[in-house]
Amino acid sequence: MATFFSKRNLQFLLHEVFEAEKLAQYPYFSAHDRETFNMALDSATYIAENLMHPHLKAVDKDQPELKDGRVKAHPAIKPYLKAMGESGLIGAGFSFEQGGQQLPELISSSVGFILMAANNGMMYTGLTSGAAHLITSFGTAALQEQYVPNLLSGVWQGTMALTEPQAGSSLSDVTTSATPVDAEAGVYKIRGQKVFISAGDHDATDNIIHLMLARIDGAPKGTKGISLFVVPKYRPTESGKFVDNDVTSTGIYHKMGQHGVPAMHLTMGERDDCTGYLVGQPHHGLSYMFQMMNEARIGVGMTAAAIATAAYHAALQYAKERPQSRRLNEKNLLDAPQTPIINHPDVRRMLLFQKAVTEGSLSILLETARLFDLSSVAEGDDKETYTLLMEILTPVAKTFPSEMGVQSVSQSMQTFGGYGYTEDFPVEQLYRDIRITPIYEGTTGIQAQDLLGRKMTMKGGKAAKLLFAEIGKTIAEAGTHDDLKPYAEQMAAELKQIQEVMAVLMPHAMAGDIERYLADATLFLELFGTVCVAWQWLKQATVAKQALLTHNPEGDELAFYEGKLHTMKFYFHYEVPKTLGLARRLKDPEVLTIVTP
Amino acid sequence: MATFFSKRNLQFLLHEVFEAEKLAQYPYFSAHDRETFNMALDSATYIAENLMHPHLKAVDKDQPELKDGRVKAHPAIKPYLKAMGESGLIGAGFSFEQGGQQLPELISSSVGFILMAANNGMMYTGLTSGAAHLITSFGTAALQEQYVPNLLSGVWQGTMALTEPQAGSSLSDVTTSATPVDAEAGVYKIRGQKVFISAGDHDATDNIIHLMLARIDGAPKGTKGISLFVVPKYRPTESGKFVDNDVTSTGIYHKMGQHGVPAMHLTMGERDDCTGYLVGQPHHGLSYMFQMMNEARIGVGMTAAAIATAAYHAALQYAKERPQSRRLNEKNLLDAPQTPIINHPDVRRMLLFQKAVTEGSLSILLETARLFDLSSVAEGDDKETYTLLMEILTPVAKTFPSEMGVQSVSQSMQTFGGYGYTEDFPVEQLYRDIRITPIYEGTTGIQAQDLLGRKMTMKGGKAAKLLFAEIGKTIAEAGTHDDLKPYAEQMAAELKQIQEVMAVLMPHAMAGDIERYLADATLFLELFGTVCVAWQWLKQATVAKQALLTHNPEGDELAFYEGKLHTMKFYFHYEVPKTLGLARRLKDPEVLTIVTP
Repeated sequence: MATFFSKRNLQFLLHEVFEAEKLAQYPYFSAHDRETFNMALDSATYIAENLMHPHLKAVDKDQPELKDGRVKAHPAIKPYLKAMGESGLIGAGFSFEQGGQQLPELISSSVGFILMAANNGMMYTGLTSGAAHLITSFGTAALQEQYVPNLLSGVWQGTMALTEPQAGSSLSDVTTSATPVDAEAGVYKIRGQKVFISAGDHDATDNIIHLMLARIDGAPKGTKGISLFVVPKYRPTESGKFVDNDVTSTGIYHKMGQHGVPAMHLTMGERDDCTGYLVGQPHHGLSYMFQMMNEARIGVGMTAAAIATAAYHAALQYAKERPQSRRLNEKNLLDAPQTPIINHPDVRRMLLFQKAVTEGSLSILLETARLFDLSSVAEGDDKETYTLLMEILTPVAKTFPSEMGVQSVSQSMQTFGGYGYTEDFPVEQLYRDIRITPIYEGTTGIQAQDLLGRKMTMKGGKAAKLLFAEIGKTIAEAGTHDDLKPYAEQMAAELKQIQEVMAVLMPHAMAGDIERYLADATLFLELFGTVCVAWQWLKQATVAKQALLTHNPEGDELAFYEGKLHTMKFYFHYEVPKTLGLARRLKDPEVLTIVTP
Repeated sequence: MATFFSKRNLQFLLHEVFEAEKLAQYPYFSAHDRETFNMALDSATYIAENLMHPHLKAVDKDQPELKDGRVKAHPAIKPYLKAMGESGLIGAGFSFEQGGQQLPELISSSVGFILMAANNGMMYTGLTSGAAHLITSFGTAALQEQYVPNLLSGVWQGTMALTEPQAGSSLSDVTTSATPVDAEAGVYKIRGQKVFISAGDHDATDNIIHLMLARIDGAPKGTKGISLFVVPKYRPTESGKFVDNDVTSTGIYHKMGQHGVPAMHLTMGERDDCTGYLVGQPHHGLSYMFQMMNEARIGVGMTAAAIATAAYHAALQYAKERPQSRRLNEKNLLDAPQTPIINHPDVRRMLLFQKAVTEGSLSILLETARLFDLSSVAEGDDKETYTLLMEILTPVAKTFPSEMGVQSVSQSMQTFGGYGYTEDFPVEQLYRDIRITPIYEGTTGIQAQDLLGRKMTMKGGKAAKLLFAEIGKTIAEAGTHDDLKPYAEQMAAELKQIQEVMAVLMPHAMAGDIERYLADATLFLELFGTVCVAWQWLKQATVAKQALLTHNPEGDELAFYEGKLHTMKFYFHYEVPKTLGLARRLKDPEVLTIVTP
């Protein structure tokens, strides 16, 4: 029934490529099996199809407005939150003890994928999960008891309140202040402003719980003086009643897309009556936030992959149905009927690009989510290995789906021609929606600095070495099939090319010239991401090849596996060559973007 | 005063690079000189600054709606049309005899650039000029007398009515019918539907004159049976009165951008009372349209270049003013103030990309416009040379600014970070607006087939040979300066690479396998366009170098010329390497996008 994603592809990735069930061998996930995983996905699909997708256009059209200090959410939001709470999906990734389902990130991020493919303008619950997760990870038992149940049931909304007018990418410049009232009990008075707070105010829940960064009076400058607070819209009193906590909605941003989610400008302490509750230790706020960042970034990548997937499926359907012109080699047969545009090579190229990008994105995201799970349940050396692999892949898993997703949706629109530019089809909305993803949770430039500046060099380059070894396993396996061998060899050549680039760049880092080392970091991330997704395609193709050899599939199943092999080839013949130009530039000694003081 | 384009850059291109005044050596343009050229540009700038730019947001917000069969244009449109008519700018490119200013396309397209940079949502008069031009080129004296004066004065609106629901890219499938009423007098009854007719109905003019493609009853199938008609909204009667001509606005498209321009669905002959007046000979309509196509395509390219230019200037200003974070080599100086983001290499790279794309786009467009002028005023062999050069560059001049402009505006938005995604700044609107340009007047795929399928092969490849010879002159001139020599050599290598690609592709064309020959035509256009704009940058850099050597400029002028050299280098070091991957793919024998029957 769902037209906005391919269930078959998700099942292929989860069970055939990433063997999700193997996670159940670890005690923490031992209550689960393929059936419980699929139950969660089925719940998500039900909600996506019935409570989200039908409202895709509506939440875009009737965007929330700030009136008399309050924000009215679209009427579709409340039933959605209720269903998400009741189905247990907001708490999918939380432990049984915390009231969750103790599902791996591999599955809970797949849930997010399904929901966001249906309607990314209803992006509310991921924020709530993130906020609740900060409290369960670092908050006191009292804070957990007070806030987590209502968050996981969808009765309350959670937010992440980081950005300030003067502190966007530069979080170390946060100035929202926290003045001790009862420091022992972790009670502070909060004053300041936050901007771009998604779901930062609305009436679909009884309370809004902000997980907010602020600076305790007298704290050290910079990143080491920032603390984390729970700042509710309505705060509990000793009597159990809730009173207004002096968090004022000062403004609402009108965005190009994701209209359904209000982005708020909040002012705390206008009446000097805003209370914040310290989470964890003073001055550790930014490090707590960053411990949540991997999941948050996988979440943004998933949103991007989901939006691009919905657009691709819309374009694919249109291309199969829309007749226009004749095949080029039969151009003069005027009596011939027009052919569906999917038969034109240029259109087919655009569709294969979209398929390669969207299914490649989902693959690298699930790979990273699986490593995230392994990093939390494995022990000893394995734990370190999985953690390093997850760390190095996270900037790719956030950025490739976002940046290439923007291009993919653009090609979806182009497939529709003029119709794609109108509101008659969903792609124009998806084109607007996806454009925020290269900005959310650390822009592409920030991700690039994270990859090249931290992840490539940490522990003496161990993460990169481990990743290359993993890719080496895929190369070896693919190399056993004659028709995959050329691609395995190409894959090895791409790794070598990255090493050559690193050999040129590293001396700048060694010499302490970080600005020069990172000047083209964004291009390095593009190169690295293109190669990582090539790895995912080689992996998928190897699994598909094996299935073709062993199961002898027919009909749709045969077409599915052959489609995987074909798309892998497309990616290697059309996308991988882009690394040539990137590597050329990255090895080029000419400096053109650094200002001399 | 104008913040949406650089007057200095336009003057540089027109007078220093393209030596506009030399056109006045031809008798047709002999009434003109630098002063009259600049007068037209000043008029345009005045209108752009006073009657267009102030309404940028308003025409986006209050988009026209279809109510009771009529469309109300934004109140800003009428005064704009009046000023454009009175200033003579609608007729800028028409002969004195036709009531125009007899200005070269080089200047009239620059006028369009200024207007569209100010507010592309007021794109009305280019359509009127196009319609009037069809009448002056192919219509009878009576038709000219009846329609042209009111079009050029802005009292009437002109449109181009080509597309039908089943005939978008495939114009040969037009089915709107024309039944002879008085064939001798060129009077026909029109029945059918047209879609996506820009400015196809509104109340800011007294009449709307559609230049419409239709098929005379019994006409041959395909492209050779299509005729061109004038179909007014109100038709003149013998008494001189005007009566309703049965052209009904059946629908209005809601588009992602260019909200100010209504895109109409029109139905002709619902009451069997729609009259059309034949323009030129029966069955020649499509060829007439295509003779106008070069100008129309330059017009779309100009619109794209203008939108991207406005976004670049907004991003540049923001980057100079917005402080965020510290330089990477001084990251730990917590006491240091934040630095303007233009000082971060990644932001500077994004800005240089925008400058390279927008000023490179304007340059290739003016080059093409100048060739257009020379092709109409030159004689003998020269005429053929200029015509062939203009023909081969037109698909590039339409596509590079559109496709790369979309990417450029995306980088403008990224420069703003989250703010760029909001309505607080103009870039989100420009991001939506520019996305139509790769679709208008022949999609990128159609342009690519035009380039590789027609222009590269016509007259035994003569156009390409002439173009390479032109580029060779620039290479030779650049090569005389030591610091430009490496770029001149790179330029020569790029031409050689294109020849290698052609050597691989041509055998498919020779064998009659057009589908295979054109399968990756879009990538060929991307390669070819990248190289043509490299040529423009080398040309600009050579002129700038000469100016630095001879004029010894200081201050802003010194910075301007040095900026040109720097941006040329940026283009060669960052953009030109992309041709490596494109050439690799284009030479690759693997076929992945052709369906076997």
